[in-house]
Amino acid sequence: MKTALIILAAGRGTRMNSDLPKVLHPLAGAPLLVHAMQSGASLAPEKTVIVAGHGAAEVRKAALAHDATVTVTEQTEQLGTAHAAAQARDSLKDFDGTAIVLFGDTPFVRPETLEQMVGALKSHDVVILGFEAEDPARYGRLVMRGDDLERIVEFKDATDEERAISLCNSGVVACDARLLFDLIDAIGNDNASAEYYLTDIVGLARARDLSATVVTCEQAETLGINTRAELAQAEAAFQARVRTTAFEDGVTMPAPDTVHFAFDTVVGRDTVIEPNVVFGPGVTVESGAQIRAFSHLEGCHVSRGSVIGPYARLRPGAELAENVRIGNFVEIKNAQIGQGTKVNHLSYIGDATLGSGTNVGAGTVTCNYDGVMKHHTHIGDNVFIGSDTMLVAPVHIGDAAMTASGSVITSDVEPGALALGRAHQVEKPGMAVKLFEMLKAQKARNQRGS
Amino acid sequence: MKTALIILAAGRGTRMNSDLPKVLHPLAGAPLLVHAMQSGASLAPEKTVIVAGHGAAEVRKAALAHDATVTVTEQTEQLGTAHAAAQARDSLKDFDGTAIVLFGDTPFVRPETLEQMVGALKSHDVVILGFEAEDPARYGRLVMRGDDLERIVEFKDATDEERAISLCNSGVVACDARLLFDLIDAIGNDNASAEYYLTDIVGLARARDLSATVVTCEQAETLGINTRAELAQAEAAFQARVRTTAFEDGVTMPAPDTVHFAFDTVVGRDTVIEPNVVFGPGVTVESGAQIRAFSHLEGCHVSRGSVIGPYARLRPGAELAENVRIGNFVEIKNAQIGQGTKVNHLSYIGDATLGSGTNVGAGTVTCNYDGVMKHHTHIGDNVFIGSDTMLVAPVHIGDAAMTASGSVITSDVEPGALALGRAHQVEKPGMAVKLFEMLKAQKARNQRGS
Amino acid sequence: MKTALIILAAGRGTRMNSDLPKVLHPLAGAPLLVHAMQSGASLAPEKTVIVAGHGAAEVRKAALAHDATVTVTEQTEQLGTAHAAAQARDSLKDFDGTAIVLFGDTPFVRPETLEQMVGALKSHDVVILGFEAEDPARYGRLVMRGDDLERIVEFKDATDEERAISLCNSGVVACDARLLFDLIDAIGNDNASAEYYLTDIVGLARARDLSATVVTCEQAETLGINTRAELAQAEAAFQARVRTTAFEDGVTMPAPDTVHFAFDTVVGRDTVIEPNVVFGPGVTVESGAQIRAFSHLEGCHVSRGSVIGPYARLRPGAELAENVRIGNFVEIKNAQIGQGTKVNHLSYIGDATLGSGTNVGAGTVTCNYDGVMKHHTHIGDNVFIGSDTMLVAPVHIGDAAMTASGSVITSDVEPGALALGRAHQVEKPGMAVKLFEMLKAQKARNQRGS
Repeated sequence: MKTALIILAAGRGTRMNSDLPKVLHPLAGAPLLVHAMQSGASLAPEKTVIVAGHGAAEVRKAALAHDATVTVTEQTEQLGTAHAAAQARDSLKDFDGTAIVLFGDTPFVRPETLEQMVGALKSHDVVILGFEAEDPARYGRLVMRGDDLERIVEFKDATDEERAISLCNSGVVACDARLLFDLIDAIGNDNASAEYYLTDIVGLARARDLSATVVTCEQAETLGINTRAELAQAEAAFQARVRTTAFEDGVTMPAPDTVHFAFDTVVGRDTVIEPNVVFGPGVTVESGAQIRAFSHLEGCHVSRGSVIGPYARLRPGAELAENVRIGNFVEIKNAQIGQGTKVNHLSYIGDATLGSGTNVGAGTVTCNYDGVMKHHTHIGDNVFIGSDTMLVAPVHIGDAAMTASGSVITSDVEPGALALGRAHQVEKPGMAVKLFEMLKAQKARNQRGS
Repeated sequence: MKTALIILAAGRGTRMNSDLPKVLHPLAGAPLLVHAMQSGASLAPEKTVIVAGHGAAEVRKAALAHDATVTVTEQTEQLGTAHAAAQARDSLKDFDGTAIVLFGDTPFVRPETLEQMVGALKSHDVVILGFEAEDPARYGRLVMRGDDLERIVEFKDATDEERAISLCNSGVVACDARLLFDLIDAIGNDNASAEYYLTDIVGLARARDLSATVVTCEQAETLGINTRAELAQAEAAFQARVRTTAFEDGVTMPAPDTVHFAFDTVVGRDTVIEPNVVFGPGVTVESGAQIRAFSHLEGCHVSRGSVIGPYARLRPGAELAENVRIGNFVEIKNAQIGQGTKVNHLSYIGDATLGSGTNVGAGTVTCNYDGVMKHHTHIGDNVFIGSDTMLVAPVHIGDAAMTASGSVITSDVEPGALALGRAHQVEKPGMAVKLFEMLKAQKARNQRGS
Repeated sequence: MKTALIILAAGRGTRMNSDLPKVLHPLAGAPLLVHAMQSGASLAPEKTVIVAGHGAAEVRKAALAHDATVTVTEQTEQLGTAHAAAQARDSLKDFDGTAIVLFGDTPFVRPETLEQMVGALKSHDVVILGFEAEDPARYGRLVMRGDDLERIVEFKDATDEERAISLCNSGVVACDARLLFDLIDAIGNDNASAEYYLTDIVGLARARDLSATVVTCEQAETLGINTRAELAQAEAAFQARVRTTAFEDGVTMPAPDTVHFAFDTVVGRDTVIEPNVVFGPGVTVESGAQIRAFSHLEGCHVSRGSVIGPYARLRPGAELAENVRIGNFVEIKNAQIGQGTKVNHLSYIGDATLGSGTNVGAGTVTCNYDGVMKHHTHIGDNVFIGSDTMLVAPVHIGDAAMTASGSVITSDVEPGALALGRAHQVEKPGMAVKLFEMLKAQKARNQRGS
């Protein structure tokens, strides 16, 4: 059976107190919406329709950046969840199959749960995702008869008996797409908020003698984000889960609470991650690498046996071969670093290719920007870059070449050559002493003068 | 009604195990005493008298540094709280109004609470600050009759019935100043410790048919600090409160527990604060700025749209205009950075003024210190500072000028000019290979020799 | 009475999911095995025998690196704890005294506990270390009659009455060495796992009318590590204990949870440790030093009054005299830094000796590596090293000398002399403007071309 996702992402999120649309607030480095998209993507849906509203342009951009095949439609007025879902009708007019309605602010629904919902459609017409609430509070209650969902009762309309029910409504719905839009057409807004509630489709389906049922998941899966504090709690929960998984996968972390993963971080077995490491999106670390304290990685690849940090920053496009060493106060951006090469101290390597077995001295800079354009630096194998070498790109340093420390390299260097660009040392005997005396006298005059 | 504060700050704090007077231990970047001073300052008191004792000189200095208008008086012997409060008598001899006695090691009393105490003096002669204790333990108990405080009973003198009372004494007192000193005169030291207890004024007042009452606050407000562990707990409580407030104010923090605020940090709405950021005192960050991971800020201002870090250090006097970019391993001190200017990598900018639209290359240093004096660097608008430029201050770089990478700039540069100070590149073919062979041979000889 | 330790360290630790032998996983910077060795070392044992198995070569190396006097023997097949302990027989064949069997994955047994066990041998033949379990779960139960240990019952063999016992077996045993091996000889492997269990010696001893007893310790002391999650919990417990001790010792830490100590860190009274500091092994910090945020220290010594960081990295061999200042983005390795000397910004000082009262400018590098060998830099007292000075080692800078900023120093500098090595500044009027125009035109052409 084909599936289509409808992800509701129109809400303003007033309680976030933000100009950023709620579904674009990041969790583990990805917008909430992307987490919902990833949950749904596991079903390999034929179509995904995202219903944007507040900040629609930004939401569209973020959605398409993550998956260019999705459709983003706009709900210009916010008239309730049924009205929002109805905006997907045009995009799905030729679609024949199962529709699943997800929420862009609900990042944790598991693929297995959605698969269960699809499976339950074999025996029932409408499937609702429910959860056993620890504290049911003001959630809508799911009134069951055996396997069948009789009705959904809003808390404020519930009897005491109904309020005693702990099985609650998450809002996630699965249903044949044509039936879904058909039922939605029948939903009214005769309620206090004058909104169209998607939840009403259960009552309407039952009135037509169609069947409904519930798939139950952990309450944590259905967690919706409404405030920044809730977002921080969700982030903490996400990080805790990832850290636990990392331990099971054989990752060494003496201080797991100080390691911050992104939603897509991949770390190999027996990798050591020291305290205070931050992973941005797009990082893969092979087995047996070592990420030392205070390192920051984004969009990069670290191969087996490499040692990074402490205080190393790998930016997008940093690709490290095996046994590379990136040391303290070193920034690597858009650069391939060959096997066994070392950049140990206080350097900036950007827009560059480095061969293998090369050693880059402290204070080296690839001068990749001329004020207008970015240029590339190419360094060969077994090169020795002296400390404080300025490599003015575009420039090419041949294999086994050497640059003298303090040199500014503006022209290509042949393999095996030594390149120098520095003045001779001159010594002025006694001059330091005289200079100091002069400066001190000056300072004294200044102080008397002031 | 005029008010005067008496802040008792004479204690040694033996259990802190420190040479630093207890009230000077820092909480969120300010001495405990300053927190107490700030609580009291909300009443806009006519006079503030701080009673110092242990480490009086240091306490005086810290108090005056925070507020030069306060009076610091010294208690040369520590004979109890009443004796300490009595030291304020001379400083308040011309004062007519309400006196409030606070404690320098009790940082969390809220302004609203003090205002309530002042208000309660309309109906009563003496007002005590009390709290409902979760575990009353050995606190003094407040015995009430209706709204009236009958007496304060020390735990060790209390009957079982009195010990069942959970309303406890914080020690904070409000009272007409003349009455306060009058009552203090009557306090004796006929007790096990031979100390004069301020708490005794309630009994003395009641004996004169004066009335007393209690204003009740949260126990957390009255938390006094006696050990370093308690100080750390107070710090954690303070940070938790500030983080919660920041969320309500619309600040984005994925890992709030790793962000450390100072007592006076101001952060605008939709500012993003990444993990592991430390704020020292005196920082304001405008809305929509981004403080990336591992950044450290003190005494600085960050304007709207600016992006700081990761690994950026802003020191006192750093003032960043809008859309400034301060990147990794960059230190900014006592410097104004103009709109849209970028200092992205491995640089030290100290004692400097930078215009707008300027780009500072990696490894740039303002050489502000000549070994005796500090000097200023001025860089204009739309300047391009090449990587590894040494700007030997005092020096002035005109608008739209450029420095070549690796240059040492000792003289002013005209607007639009290119300044160079570097040797020509020379290449010695094959020399790198020969040098390596020579060095390896040398190493082999050394090893045979050893 | 002489004592010998037998430390069982042969286990594979399958649940660690690691190529590293379990006992070599680090806790607070030292392998678990080293913690067990340290516990036992407090008894000043005449012999220590470590029974290695999985990863025996690595275990041997780590054990000998910590204490070259121990004996490492290999258990080639893992046939149970009694079989493992039996491997120590040859190494102890001339030993006459008490043997204590410890576990290499049990890092927290206190010296006092082991001393109690030795003491208990005065009255009993076999001493077992037990603990009162909060949740006895599946631990073996210790069945006592008065002071005498009657027998050890495995959980699966225990009656309901025996399962109600909360005194459990840690596995640690003390016993006369000859008796130990004698009893071990009698242990059989007639059980489901076909393993030889050391625990069986109690039954065998009792069958010979020998006496056994139990010394009881906290359950936390007997904590064995089986998974990475347990290792992280043990690390957290260790850190919590060390932080508490540090507070009692008068250390100031506003954010103790962000300070990571090593097993051997020594920090003096009134030292301030700011948030996010990591201590590797071998660090001593004297009283009244200040370790600022984001600093990383390993194998170094910091003297009284010195201020380190923020973002300072002290590597092994960094020895700082009093009142030294190491600032941000500075790396110090194998270097003695004299009294009052300052290295404040963006520098690498490695393999060097610095005198007192010296100032090292920003961006300074000791170029200690020529591609083959490491060389030493010597800087005298009261020297002024200009910013961005490259000190090409081996090189010697005399007292009160000065280097001009941007110089590459390849030859020794006499005391009091000024050394320069830089090109003169040249200015090309209008050239910056022309260059920018040219580059912009080039960029435009590129874009049209593409």
